This record gives sequence, structure tokens and C-alpha cells, in this order.
Amino acid sequence: KEVPYRGPVYTEDEMLRRSQLFYESMKLRRSVRCFSPRTVPMKIIQNIIKTAGTSPSGANLQPWTFCVIADEAIKVRIREIVETEEQINYSRRMGAKWVLDVEHLNVNWNKPYLTEAPYLIVIMKQTYQILENNQRQPTYYNEISTCIATGFLLAAIHNVGLVTVTTTPLNAGGQIRELLQRPVNEKVVLLLPVGYPAENTHVPDIRRKKIEEIIRLY
Amino acid sequence: KEVPYRGPVYTEDEMLRRSQLFYESMKLRRSVRCFSPRTVPMKIIQNIIKTAGTSPSGANLQPWTFCVIADEAIKVRIREIVETEEQINYSRRMGAKWVLDVEHLNVNWNKPYLTEAPYLIVIMKQTYQILENNQRQPTYYNEISTCIATGFLLAAIHNVGLVTVTTTPLNAGGQIRELLQRPVNEKVVLLLPVGYPAENTHVPDIRRKKIEEIIRLY
Ligand SMILES: Cc1cc2nc3c(=O)[nH]c(=O)nc-3n(C[C@H](O)[C@H](O)[C@H](O)COP(=O)(O)O)c2cc1C
Ligand SMILES: Cc1cc2nc3c(=O)[nH]c(=O)nc-3n(C[C@H](O)[C@H](O)[C@H](O)COP(=O)(O)O)c2cc1C
Repeated sequence: KEVPYRGPVYTEDEMLRRSQLFYESMKLRRSVRCFSPRTVPMKIIQNIIKTAGTSPSGANLQPWTFCVIADEAIKVRIREIVETEEQINYSRRMGAKWVLDVEHLNVNWNKPYLTEAPYLIVIMKQTYQILENNQRQPTYYNEISTCIATGFLLAAIHNVGLVTVTTTPLNAGGQIRELLQRPVNEKVVLLLPVGYPAENTHVPDIRRKKIEEIIRLY
Repeated sequence: KEVPYRGPVYTEDEMLRRSQLFYESMKLRRSVRCFSPRTVPMKIIQNIIKTAGTSPSGANLQPWTFCVIADEAIKVRIREIVETEEQINYSRRMGAKWVLDVEHLNVNWNKPYLTEAPYLIVIMKQTYQILENNQRQPTYYNEISTCIATGFLLAAIHNVGLVTVTTTPLNAGGQIRELLQRPVNEKVVLLLPVGYPAENTHVPDIRRKKIEEIIRLY
């Protein structure tokens, strides 16, 4: 069964202007690692996650779950899990090269933002789904789909003036999944603290590649 | 070195309204598989790719290349490569389950959109980078980062009223990389035809999960 496609239609001038404005707005997005304790209305978080849910996905299986954590004790527990693993990552697992590669970002194993932000969003991919007849449905390209949805989520977070830092809780995914009592077909992909930036927040002075460095024309 | 964070600031009412409007707009995005031959100004494509380039990435390595193909002969060649592999995918490689799983989308091995759309964007991830001293720089989380950037790209495409269909050129990546003469550290992740929808285009009547199905509150 098919339905007519009803997307927006603009003149070429409008398109040019819109593409420019969207770029200018997204250019201001930065990963922020210091949060204000100020709370955010749940309705806004819901709209942001609904936006992520409009993402395309392989065979439309929508293989994602967004766990939104406001509970203080659970945030503290997640912070403990992540910091314990990160200390091992920094001191043993990843090696000196990795420690140097992230040095300019001023990051280390200490993650206060995991308890300071009003919300933690744990993004899970579903590696398969269980159908009504108890059969396993493989989810094609579940990580790619979930990360594209994360792109929509980040755009939605930035669009309302909230901030986050995209983090991969290296080697802590299994423990976080168990803490949140998520089923075994789900795997943690990313961990995003979400809230307002702390007052007078600073961010690393990074460089973004120029268009010529990332585009190739044929 | 650090710089002040200068993101947008809104009142709570504005945030609510913006989160709602962005959701309503993104909700209209659909994967479109029939294109108008009408051309799109290159400046718009550039702005869209610049927007993708504002994505976060592991250790800020920006491990992506966007190959934009307007050349007719190259599009024809890519279509041949993908269709040949897809015939094998449908008839032998993927099995009956997969063929059934995608049946409701009315897709098959035939991909006219790969030559009909004015542009093909081939999205490459860089599995490592070559530094000035010829050393290899590993790119942490290059696929996750590239797919988040693809989320930004899709949002930017939809924002100007253009359409695409996200596709994974299964088993055709190596041949496409060689055709485009991209270096061996790059791997094809996704292939996106981009343009205006054909007149009176129809799309599969799919269902998106409700918020309760994708969110969990703690
Ligand atoms: C990783 C990924 C791979 C996809 N591969 C294909 C594909 O090879 N062919 C195709 O026609 N659609 C493909 N799609 C599009 C999905 O079928 C589509 O997103 C889904 O049915 C939901 O429809 P919508 O995008 O209109 O919301 C893919 C989507 C994703 C995210
Ligand atoms: C997949 C991925 C993993 C990341 N992991 C971390 C992390 O563990 N800790 C952290 O502080 N930042 C992390 N970042 C954020 C990057 O360091 C940041 O995006 C990059 O430095 C560019 O800065 P910007 O986001 O402000 O543009 C990650 C980003 C991505 C996309």
C-alpha cells in the first residue's frame, strides 16, 4: 500500500536561504561537558526523542530504545560504572597514543557531567527483535540506523538551545544495560547527558575541516 | 586552549514551541525512490554537506568524505555495480527471510533512482588517517561518527525540500571505492541519491513507532 508523498516545497531562492541558515545554526553546536543543574521540562525531552524516532531505518525496523534517566541514584551508579572503566581505559587498555589523541579536548576519566546534567539519555540499538510468535527478527544495519537517529536527536537538542556531549561508554555498556534492566537484544551505543550549559561555559578551541577537505566532486 | 560556548538561548516557551515545530517538520521526511530529473544548484548541495561537517566525531577526527557524483557515466556505472550485486543478494546471498522483510517496501534489485537523481552522494568513512609524518592515525568510532553526520545530512536535505533514500550498497562498496579512486583507508558506508521528488510520487504506507514504544523513563 502506498500514499502520496507530502513533503515541503520551496522556491530555489528559499532553498538556498534555508540551506544557509540551517548550516549557520548547526555550526554553533558544540559538545558541552559542564551543565547547569536547572531542570528541563519532560515535554521538551519527549519532543526531541520523537524527532529521533522519525529517522529512517533498515527495513523500517526502528531498532532503537532511548532510556531517559532523571533518577539521581541511577545517574550516580552510571557515573561510577563509567569512571571505573575509564580509569582502566586511560591507564591500561587504550595505550599512550589514544591518551595523547584526546589530550587537546581536556578530557580524562573523571565525568562529573554524568551526574550534573538533569537527564542522561542512554541510546540502545536492538540487535534483533522478538516477534509476537516468539521468533527472532534480525534488525539489518541496526547500529547505522541508530546512529542516524542520534544525528536527528543531536540536531533536535541543539535546535532548542540545550546541550550534550556524545559519549561512548567504552566497556561499560553491559553493566549499564543490566542496571537499566534492558533485555539482552539491546546494546548500549551512546550515552548523552542533556541539559543547559553551565554559566560561562568554555569548550575546546577545535578546528572543523573546510568543505574542500570533506567533499569530492565527480 | 578554550573558547566561550556561544550557543542559542531561548525561553522555555520558545523551546517547547521549537521542539514541537522541528518534530512536525522532520515527521514529514520520507525515503523517496522516484526522482525528477530537475537539477539542483551545487551551492545547495555544498551547504548541505557543510552542515554534515558540523557533526561531532570521536577525538574530533572528522573521519568522513562525501563524494558528490553528477557525472552521468559514473552514475550509470555505479547503478550497474549495485544492481549486479543486488541480484545476487536477492537470489542467493540474503535468503528468503530478508526478501520477505523488505517486501512491504516494494523494493527489489532494480535501482533506477541511482541514475535518475541529479546527484549521488557516496558517504565514506575513514578507517584511519595518514598524518604528515606518514604515520597512521586510528579514527576512533569512525562509523558511528560518520552515521551521526549522515543524520545531520538527512536533516539538511529535508530542510530544503529535497529528498533521498538512505541505501547501503551491500557488497558493492569496494567496487564503488575503486571506481571513485578513493584511497584504501576509506570504506563506503551509504549511498544517497539526492534531488526533487518525481511528480505525484508515492511512498510506502509505513508505520512509525509511538513514543511509548521507543522511550523508557527512569
Ligand atoms: C541503514 C539503512 C539502510 C537502508 N537501505 C535501504 C535500501 O538498500 N534500499 C531501500 O530502498 N531503502 C533502504 N533504506 C530505507 C528504509 O527502507 C526506510 O528508511 C524505512 O522503510 C522507513 O521509511 P522512511 O525513511 O520513509 O521513514 C535504508 C535505511 C537505512 C537507515
Ligand atoms: C562517537 C563519538 C564518541 C565520543 N566520545 C567522547 C567521549 O567519550 N568523551 C568526550 O568528552 N567526548 C566524546 N566525543 C565528543 C568529541 O570529542 C567531539 O564531538 C569533538 O571533539 C568535536 O567537538 P564538537 O562536538 O564540539 O564539535 C565523542 C564524539 C563522538 C561522535
